[in-house]
Amino acid sequence: MKEFLRVVTPGQIYEMLSSFPRVGSTWVRLEESLDRVLFEEVVSPEDLPPAARATMDGYAVRAEDTFGATDALPSYLQVAGRVEMGKMPDFELKPGQAASIPTGGFLPSGADAVVMVEYTSDAGPAGIEVSRPVTVGENVLARGADVSRGEVVLRPGRRIRPQDIGLLAGIGRVDLCVYNRPKVAIASSGNEVVPVDRTPLPGEIRDTNSYTVGALARSAGAEVVPMGIVPDEASALREAVETALDRTDVAVLSGGSSVGERDLVSQVVSSMPGCRLLAHGIAVRPGQPTLVAEIRGKAFFGLPGHPVSAMVVAQVFLVPFLRYLQGEPLVAGLSGRRIDAVLATSIPSVPGREEYVRVRVVERNGTLWAEPVFGRSSMLSSMTRSDGLVRVPIHAEGLAGGERVEVVLF
Amino acid sequence: MKEFLRVVTPGQIYEMLSSFPRVGSTWVRLEESLDRVLFEEVVSPEDLPPAARATMDGYAVRAEDTFGATDALPSYLQVAGRVEMGKMPDFELKPGQAASIPTGGFLPSGADAVVMVEYTSDAGPAGIEVSRPVTVGENVLARGADVSRGEVVLRPGRRIRPQDIGLLAGIGRVDLCVYNRPKVAIASSGNEVVPVDRTPLPGEIRDTNSYTVGALARSAGAEVVPMGIVPDEASALREAVETALDRTDVAVLSGGSSVGERDLVSQVVSSMPGCRLLAHGIAVRPGQPTLVAEIRGKAFFGLPGHPVSAMVVAQVFLVPFLRYLQGEPLVAGLSGRRIDAVLATSIPSVPGREEYVRVRVVERNGTLWAEPVFGRSSMLSSMTRSDGLVRVPIHAEGLAGGERVEVVLF
Repeated sequence: MKEFLRVVTPGQIYEMLSSFPRVGSTWVRLEESLDRVLFEEVVSPEDLPPAARATMDGYAVRAEDTFGATDALPSYLQVAGRVEMGKMPDFELKPGQAASIPTGGFLPSGADAVVMVEYTSDAGPAGIEVSRPVTVGENVLARGADVSRGEVVLRPGRRIRPQDIGLLAGIGRVDLCVYNRPKVAIASSGNEVVPVDRTPLPGEIRDTNSYTVGALARSAGAEVVPMGIVPDEASALREAVETALDRTDVAVLSGGSSVGERDLVSQVVSSMPGCRLLAHGIAVRPGQPTLVAEIRGKAFFGLPGHPVSAMVVAQVFLVPFLRYLQGEPLVAGLSGRRIDAVLATSIPSVPGREEYVRVRVVERNGTLWAEPVFGRSSMLSSMTRSDGLVRVPIHAEGLAGGERVEVVLF
Repeated sequence: MKEFLRVVTPGQIYEMLSSFPRVGSTWVRLEESLDRVLFEEVVSPEDLPPAARATMDGYAVRAEDTFGATDALPSYLQVAGRVEMGKMPDFELKPGQAASIPTGGFLPSGADAVVMVEYTSDAGPAGIEVSRPVTVGENVLARGADVSRGEVVLRPGRRIRPQDIGLLAGIGRVDLCVYNRPKVAIASSGNEVVPVDRTPLPGEIRDTNSYTVGALARSAGAEVVPMGIVPDEASALREAVETALDRTDVAVLSGGSSVGERDLVSQVVSSMPGCRLLAHGIAVRPGQPTLVAEIRGKAFFGLPGHPVSAMVVAQVFLVPFLRYLQGEPLVAGLSGRRIDAVLATSIPSVPGREEYVRVRVVERNGTLWAEPVFGRSSMLSSMTRSDGLVRVPIHAEGLAGGERVEVVLF
């Protein structure tokens, strides 16, 4: 069959995808950096905290002044002052002295520990008694203990999390150099496909793949450039792919479920200057009739027209690729939350093809069961009724009912 | 100790939080609805597909005309026409007739099945031979098989996924009624705290909690209203909380690590008209000195000032609450991807307090190990160095090294 001239394995596709160059970088404000991928190496220009701070309410002391202190024989210390929040103490702690200090307060010079307020009591107008010894550094966050000056705090390729933003705020980073969001052009082809806001005439059907694939691309951090619907004609398809590649980093065209349409798309793409066809079919199900090409150094994905096939291919190949383009490592397979479940019924499969099975997850008698959702790949409702996918490995002859499986939720 | 006057368990907090009213609704465009929570019940106004479609390339037939067909004794059918994409066939299939049809094409009236092209061969100028029988409905997606008119396709309270958007596109929904994003005011208090873009003077420190908590609130679907830094004075605190509650659905104030500051915040909040103090301390670690109140029907969270404590409380209580306000059920505990690992060292814990332990996940000899990251709750770097949290249940006396634990990644 002509359309499966160059069927490749999922492993081969990932390898080919990982040779594409990554997208460039841009600067964003710190508060807009969540989930972006760091481009620069962040080195701290300063110590955090900038000087020793108390981690408890109590008294800043010289630890040696408390050595041997007990309830019966407390150490007497003279109160030299009071540390206030927001100010560096302007006095020095001399031997035999203490200064009241709140949590977070900066230690006066001379102090090297904090006695918790619970282990102190008032003793006269300007003195306290300490009933427990402290060691040097006790209840103190030393200068640079959180982050030290010159330390590499975050490395390139890291997806930025809330705590990373917090640390960057702590060292005064207002702007941050991150990878660009890859731009993805998304088009649907097919003479029967009409935009969502149009009432289909008899014989027509609304575009759904642009929406599902667009949402997946956005959730992978990409910027989606909608290219609308392309008629099934060589010149229109060629122009759409060329425009897409001029404007974006990745072109995705879904549609072409029939052999004729698929052939047309593959002919158009193959004949474009600078095109290298990477896959004319992937050993995956649903989604086998997928086209992947490199055109002038950019990636082209021709997704199957069946809505379930288009989504599975987008989840399994496009999403990892978009994350890779943003500087993350290329991670094969589905991303997302995983749960373990027991397969409710057997799933037959043909060895030599990786298979993704839609499942619902239901709890019965304290066990989580993964129930295959049967339904053709042309039925989008089989995806809305599912909770996730179970992968049947490429060399397996299926999975047996009762087997433990990993469900990747979506 | 005064500040623990009303220490409640995590379970009690969730119960109290689940009595707050949810936020209202708004309309969004379909392509902007990803991860929003559905407010309306969506009923399909039409059948999907609107008429029977082929799921394979081949010939539309009347199934009974193929009964008994074999390679040796094929059925001969007259070719009545050709179905084109995007058009409803304008001819009818009479007994003994077939029509070529591509995948996705609409069946002509009279046809009730599709024979795959592989099982047909040309027979003269206007005829084909069929070598295998098909049953009624074979290789056909019947009218309404994906979605039927009047069917409830999506229910309120559902977080919208890519496939849901696809289905909604299929039935022509351009706009969608979803829950509002809850508005969350986030402020930091403390006389030592300065904005990130200012170089701290001696004794000062940059605001980090607004950034970490703000990022967590955004990732939970909330809209963050930054309220800046509030000095530790009763009148300033009162004004900040009042302004926050006027403008938003939830007010979050972090800071107040010292007993004096905490007392001030709790006094200010308690004295506000319409205030009901729900918790003056939660049996959780880190994060015990947390204040939760209902003020004029809205929620107030007073988070601890220590950065790790503020983040843990935000993850464990604020994030589930924000998702609840958007129409989802209130799910106790941490959300996020979970993995199983073996605890590398024992974690001691005090019964009566739920504990969240920062861990790094490392692979050694094919096993995933969860290694506790020790570091005070005042060290933000202990969070950036961690991969996730392990929960020690409230009644446990800790977890033993070698035990299997669930790590919630962040």
